[in-house]
Amino acid sequence: VKVSEIGEIALVELISNVINTSGEKKAKALQQLIIGIGDDAAAWYTGNNIQLATVDALVQNVHFTLDKTPWFELGWKALAVNLSDIAAMGGIPEYALVSLGLSPDIEVDNVIELYEGMMNLARQQNMTIIGGDTDSTPYVSITVTVLGNMGVDRHPLTRSSAKPGDFIVVTGWLGTAAAGLEMLNNNLKFDSETTAIFKQALFHPDPRIPEGQLLVKKGVKTAIDISDGLYADLKHICRASHTGAKVEVYKLPIDAPVKHSFQDKSLELAISGGEDYELLFTADINTIEKVRKHTKCPISIIGEMTQENIGEVIFSDEKGNIVKPDKKGWEHFISK
Amino acid sequence: VKVSEIGEIALVELISNVINTSGEKKAKALQQLIIGIGDDAAAWYTGNNIQLATVDALVQNVHFTLDKTPWFELGWKALAVNLSDIAAMGGIPEYALVSLGLSPDIEVDNVIELYEGMMNLARQQNMTIIGGDTDSTPYVSITVTVLGNMGVDRHPLTRSSAKPGDFIVVTGWLGTAAAGLEMLNNNLKFDSETTAIFKQALFHPDPRIPEGQLLVKKGVKTAIDISDGLYADLKHICRASHTGAKVEVYKLPIDAPVKHSFQDKSLELAISGGEDYELLFTADINTIEKVRKHTKCPISIIGEMTQENIGEVIFSDEKGNIVKPDKKGWEHFISK
Repeated sequence: VKVSEIGEIALVELISNVINTSGEKKAKALQQLIIGIGDDAAAWYTGNNIQLATVDALVQNVHFTLDKTPWFELGWKALAVNLSDIAAMGGIPEYALVSLGLSPDIEVDNVIELYEGMMNLARQQNMTIIGGDTDSTPYVSITVTVLGNMGVDRHPLTRSSAKPGDFIVVTGWLGTAAAGLEMLNNNLKFDSETTAIFKQALFHPDPRIPEGQLLVKKGVKTAIDISDGLYADLKHICRASHTGAKVEVYKLPIDAPVKHSFQDKSLELAISGGEDYELLFTADINTIEKVRKHTKCPISIIGEMTQENIGEVIFSDEKGNIVKPDKKGWEHFISK
Repeated sequence: VKVSEIGEIALVELISNVINTSGEKKAKALQQLIIGIGDDAAAWYTGNNIQLATVDALVQNVHFTLDKTPWFELGWKALAVNLSDIAAMGGIPEYALVSLGLSPDIEVDNVIELYEGMMNLARQQNMTIIGGDTDSTPYVSITVTVLGNMGVDRHPLTRSSAKPGDFIVVTGWLGTAAAGLEMLNNNLKFDSETTAIFKQALFHPDPRIPEGQLLVKKGVKTAIDISDGLYADLKHICRASHTGAKVEVYKLPIDAPVKHSFQDKSLELAISGGEDYELLFTADINTIEKVRKHTKCPISIIGEMTQENIGEVIFSDEKGNIVKPDKKGWEHFISK
């Protein structure tokens, strides 16, 4: 059986089995581990603090193309996608390590711009790059590891703690980064303000670090960052928490320029687009109101966790009718 | 200017400049940092312990080929090269994160074997894999981050602390892994025992974790692991410590099967071959004797750090004559 035939989720499950068959937990490192493979970041105790670590790679022609992505923005994003994982735990980022694969024909100036993009975001977050390696490879790849901590006596947000009856909440806007990708890939033309908004969302995602910490402080237990898209990431929470989820599509926070520019297609961008790097969390209404009071970030309730349909996400319209994607995706259903 | 025109050392220097121009050290993470870019691993304070982190990638057709490297051995080695960096700091490894690039046609069974190889070494070291990601890429790449600590009140070994007059010491044997690579690449045939020794050195390097910790305990300050070869790695110490080095080539510990199988060429394998993952350290004679007393690992004095020839390594023969590589490498000089 080939890797392409079983998909990423099944592959990660098989890998987890190899790692977890260790059995003996006598090692100190294993005793201190709180969260291993399967969440946005790993977590372990050191004294009265909890440390965090996460790794993510951006690979040329898989996650980006060099003709469409400026180097500074590529650097920013390579760090941002990892900071978003730390945000999803409610943590404080501290250090990054960068493993860089470069083809020999890359300009040195471009590598400098890449690091300037990373350091720009790093400084904004009071963190720095402490190590890495460079390799000569046929194409560009940037693998970033970010280390952080929770702050004394704070417990990380997980994917596995959602309960039926919890409301499902998202920060910010969904689908704007996907709109930016559509614009770039199909050479779509918009007015300069719209173009700027779409580019900003795609190239300069702002990891929700303060919002993640606020969630922990106000008593939220469950969160994930939206990297693969609302549908895929909410499904991760459903699987890890052994619950279902019901989302009311008309409640999805879709920014006006996306709605205006993409019309019917905007629902698909919001549900399946990915790369928004917003936080998706679940909580009761009191906790949500406490969070809302302490942030300027938009906080939208979009649905509810359910006892039924374990591991699945059901979408419904204003009349309560279930909507499903067809071969064309979700756009078919938005105006029903 | 292209990346290939300036080489890795100059590139890393330029990257370090971008990272270190931050200026302000008000962030807690920056105040706690002890060693950033430029050593085998990064190091920072948490309480009365020091944490370590390092990252290294193995890339298909750059560091290995799939036709010559069994998957289990590939996994072992991907972790071992990183553990060797922790050993060079004198640290205790705890956790690993693995970022895996896989082409779609790879067999799932092979991925399992890869992880079994990693976990085999991980369990031996009482550590585990706590996170990672998988990506679909045109060829296989394995990027491993290892986290560890020094143990309470222990300070890491560095590249920058060598002093003129220090003796230069290596653990174990040099050139055996390079002999294995020669054997594989040129389809050389040896008796089964020799073949086994060469393969073991190439595919199952045993990171010098206990020896690294012993060095710290006995008062050694300076070390590096030999990954790029004795010449290149000793040069790293010279540059970082602002010293020179003089190595007496007839003192290099070259294992009998290497000498016997490669004759004149064995000196080149020992000096430039790389991938031995032995420790290279510098210390005064009393400290070296204390180390020697507490290990079964071969400990060989091979030369001395010097005030002259800063940043350079000079090799000399038994008569004190300087030997230099010519276009054919070092083999020309062994029998002089």
